[in-house]
Formats: sequence, C-alpha cells, structure tokens
Amino acid sequence: MSRIAYVNGRYVPHRAATVHIEDRGLQFADGVYEVIAIWRGLPVDLGPHLNRLEQGLTELQIPMPASRRVVAHVLREVVRRNGIGTGIVYLQVNRGVAPRLHTWDHGLRPSMIATARRMPSMARTVIEDGAKVISVEDIRWKRRDIKTVGLLPNVLAKQKAQAAGCPEVFQVDGDGMVTEAGASNAWMVDQDGRLITRPLGHEILPGITRRTLVRLARDAGMEVVERPFSLEEAKAAREAFFSSTTNFVMPVVQIDDAVIGNGKPGSVSARLRALYLDYLNGLTPDAWTAAA
Amino acid sequence: MSRIAYVNGRYVPHRAATVHIEDRGLQFADGVYEVIAIWRGLPVDLGPHLNRLEQGLTELQIPMPASRRVVAHVLREVVRRNGIGTGIVYLQVNRGVAPRLHTWDHGLRPSMIATARRMPSMARTVIEDGAKVISVEDIRWKRRDIKTVGLLPNVLAKQKAQAAGCPEVFQVDGDGMVTEAGASNAWMVDQDGRLITRPLGHEILPGITRRTLVRLARDAGMEVVERPFSLEEAKAAREAFFSSTTNFVMPVVQIDDAVIGNGKPGSVSARLRALYLDYLNGLTPDAWTAAA
Repeated sequence: MSRIAYVNGRYVPHRAATVHIEDRGLQFADGVYEVIAIWRGLPVDLGPHLNRLEQGLTELQIPMPASRRVVAHVLREVVRRNGIGTGIVYLQVNRGVAPRLHTWDHGLRPSMIATARRMPSMARTVIEDGAKVISVEDIRWKRRDIKTVGLLPNVLAKQKAQAAGCPEVFQVDGDGMVTEAGASNAWMVDQDGRLITRPLGHEILPGITRRTLVRLARDAGMEVVERPFSLEEAKAAREAFFSSTTNFVMPVVQIDDAVIGNGKPGSVSARLRALYLDYLNGLTPDAWTAAA
Repeated sequence: MSRIAYVNGRYVPHRAATVHIEDRGLQFADGVYEVIAIWRGLPVDLGPHLNRLEQGLTELQIPMPASRRVVAHVLREVVRRNGIGTGIVYLQVNRGVAPRLHTWDHGLRPSMIATARRMPSMARTVIEDGAKVISVEDIRWKRRDIKTVGLLPNVLAKQKAQAAGCPEVFQVDGDGMVTEAGASNAWMVDQDGRLITRPLGHEILPGITRRTLVRLARDAGMEVVERPFSLEEAKAAREAFFSSTTNFVMPVVQIDDAVIGNGKPGSVSARLRALYLDYLNGLTPDAWTAAA
C-alpha cells in the first residue's frame, strides 16, 4: 500500500507531495502543526488538538484553512487511506504562498498538509528500561506556547541527545528551571509522590497529552502541582518522566549523570501510563466526529 | 519573460518550482538562506555571503550542497535567466528530505533553491524622507548569528511595524539595548559624529552590508565604535539608520514617538550611503568569479 498525503485539497502519492518554494512555511517557518495519535484507528484528543491549532493560527493571524469539520474529515481520510491502526497523523498549516516578503497580505489562502504513519511501538504497555535524558540550555524564542514549525532549536537539542545515546533532553532556562523536554513536556514526582509539572505560559508548549494526564491523575486522586521545578530538583526527585503524543508517559531514569530514584521506572509514572492506556482503550468511534 | 527558479539541480518555471512536503526546511525550519544584491548585473559581496552560508551550514552540520564555484555559477545563471540588472538573488539551503523526525541522518542530501527578482527601487541615490521605526521586544532564539529560515519572530515584528505605517522595527533585548532591526542591522550616530553599532555575537546576525559599511567608513576616516547601545540612547542620537542588502543605508527619522535629530535624514548616514553607492558602482565583472 503506497502512502498517500493530503496537500491543499488533493490526496496525492506521498513521494509526489510538494509545496511551492514560496510557501511561507518554507521561507519563514510561518506555520503551525499538530501531531495527533491514532489508536486502534481512532484519534486521541482530536478536539483539544484542533483547539490548539485554532489558537496558534489566531496568534499568527492565519485563518483556519477549512472548517473544523472539514479538517477532521481530511485527517480521518488520510488515516483511512494509509490504513493506520496505531500511529500518528501529522497536520501542518502555513500562511500560504506569496512572493518573498516578511510582511503578509491578509488575503492569502493557507496551505494545508496532512500525512499519516504507522508507529506500532506506541502500543508498548510496559516501559522496561526508561529513558536517559541530558539537560540543555533552552535557546528557543519567547513564544513557545505557539506550536510553530520553527523547530530548529528543538532539532539541535534532540540531535545532541541522540549523540549522547539519549532519546530526549530536559531544556533548562536561565534560572536553572526545567521548561520542557525536546518534543515533550517534562514532569517530576516529589518525595511525597506529588506530580509536578511546569504551569502553562509563553515558556512552554501546552501539551495535549500533558493536559489529559493532569485530568486523569486528578480524577484518580493523585495530586498534581503545576509549578516550575529546577534541574537540580528533578535530579533529586523520586521519579521523572516526559509526556507527548507518541511517548504517552515515558519514565526518565537518568538526567545527565544523576540516576533518578533506583534507576528504574517508578511506580507513579507507571500508574499514570496505565491510566493513559486505559483512557486510550476507552476511546469510542465518535472520536472523529465529536471534535468537529 | 517568465521567471525561472533553480531547485535541486534543475532550472524550472517559477510557478512550478516545488519541494517535497518532507523537506526539513518546511517541517523544522532546518535550513539557512542568503539574499544577495545584484547591481548592474553583478553580485554584491558574493564572497562574504558564501562565507556566511558556509558558517551557518557548519553550525548546523549541514554539508554545502555543492562547491562554492558551483553555487556561484547557479546564482549567476538564475540572475542571467531572469534578466536581473538591479535586484536580488535568493538562495536557500535546507538539510534535505527525510521522514519526519527531529533528529537527522548525516547522509542527507541538502536541498538548494535559488530565485531572483528585480528591485529597481534599490537604485535610489537619495533618501528624501527617511524611515520611521517602532521598537519591539526581541523575542528571537539565542543563536541569531545563524541565518536560518526560522523567521517567524521577524515576520511578526515587521507586520507590527507595517500596521504602524513603518517599514522597520528596532528590536530591543531585556536590558533595553537595541539588538538589530527586523531584517537589517541597527546603527546610531552619537553627538560626536561617531558611528555606533552592536558588536557581533550570538545576539545579532552578522550583516554583510554592516560589514562592508564598517570597512568603508573606517577607510574614509569615519570613527566606528562597535558597542551595544540602548533604545533610549538611539532616541536621543544625532542620527540613526539601518543597513541591509536591499536597503543599503536607510536613515531613521523617528523611533516610536521620538524624532531623531531634526526629523530629516542626517549627513553622516547620507555620506555613508554615498560611500556604499560608490562601492557598488566600482564593482568589476570578476565579482562573480572572484568569490568562488
């Protein structure tokens, strides 16, 4: 089955899927994106993803490329045409195509791209070893709450992690506080078993998985404290983990040279991962339509 | 004459010039660019532009897409095929096309794009009115010395300027110091007639026009001091201006509500612009080949 992508109104073979060289996404990183998990063919938190897309576009004064209903339909169609059971659908919306000039005209028609991919590894229910992370300086711009495609700082951080044999980083601001991971939100568990994660603001991306985990944890009677925490505090924490669309809850067993807890995934992150998997397994077929 | 673009080894009609949706320039702003002025068919400072391109690529661990000689040849050919007398040639190099993943493999083949455009307005010898600018917070990432396509903060700043009826901004850091303009370097002239511009570092782009102006000014016996200056200092300055590939030297006559000097372009910036135009008019036909 050859892959199919959606680009500006057409479903095309993936290898032939192109945009114009003056698409502002290419020349100015003038666009936003979403990565939505697909679980047993159903989208995870499609509504919140579309909300965040709309918020980012509003911040950038880019109109929605189509109604929520049509966007959801396109995503569903891309998932269907690519036969995705467990995986992701990627959506990118750019300001549009125009002769290169920093300023834009409001009449531009946004570009919309969608692709989908299988990721069977997402279905792991147990994380045996956990992940090691390295800390890096957070060198990103000051509006990290907007999910733009201007990801080069994240790319450089993740590449540095890979060179160190790690799948992720913890990014640290000028005050020594953890902002987020490289493409995930960062969490720790304090000695009293409380879940700690940085509050929303311009400094971090408002993760959709983060959002759901906060709710699931609280519903299960776990205490969640939204406050900044330092790298040093994380290194001395009982547990640490990161959360994202594709990693769900990923336990961190080492930060730089500091072993976290006993060096094995901890019970609190394991419980939270289990809660999240229960949540995924409880998705109902209206997940595609309820969000629109 | 229909426009021609160069994309990855081919000269193609501009309207049909495309890149793959998984070009990392589009998905991660994982690329750099140069805008080179063309003056009477000759490139301005091609060598320094290619040097900066190489430096940026080295920082990002992207190989040159071709030798300097070949890159220069492509630029010349794009200029020739588009019949550019006075204008610009735009060059973009991205890391390459790969399935979307933050980390990259070193074997990727970089993408290379070149376009050219006439800009007859560049040839103005006298700036009658000068430009008004507004100040904005510099919200960019911490490696502004790398000329990446991650330009969204610049885009937002320039759009804000346009909404205020201004062609440019002065970006200001957390200490109240001017970093640079929106797509130009920022300068002021103090009460003693000295030219002041921020020293190079991670905080600003190393402008090629800035570089040439420093040299031309010093050769002409003008004093140039490379030091940070504050927004307040600029507002009280004898003159202010910004410099770029397409603006050369553009006098600033107002910053926010503060009128600069007597509200007319000043003599020092006029002299510097004249020196720069002399320099352009002295370009020789080997400008295409000497740089390679």
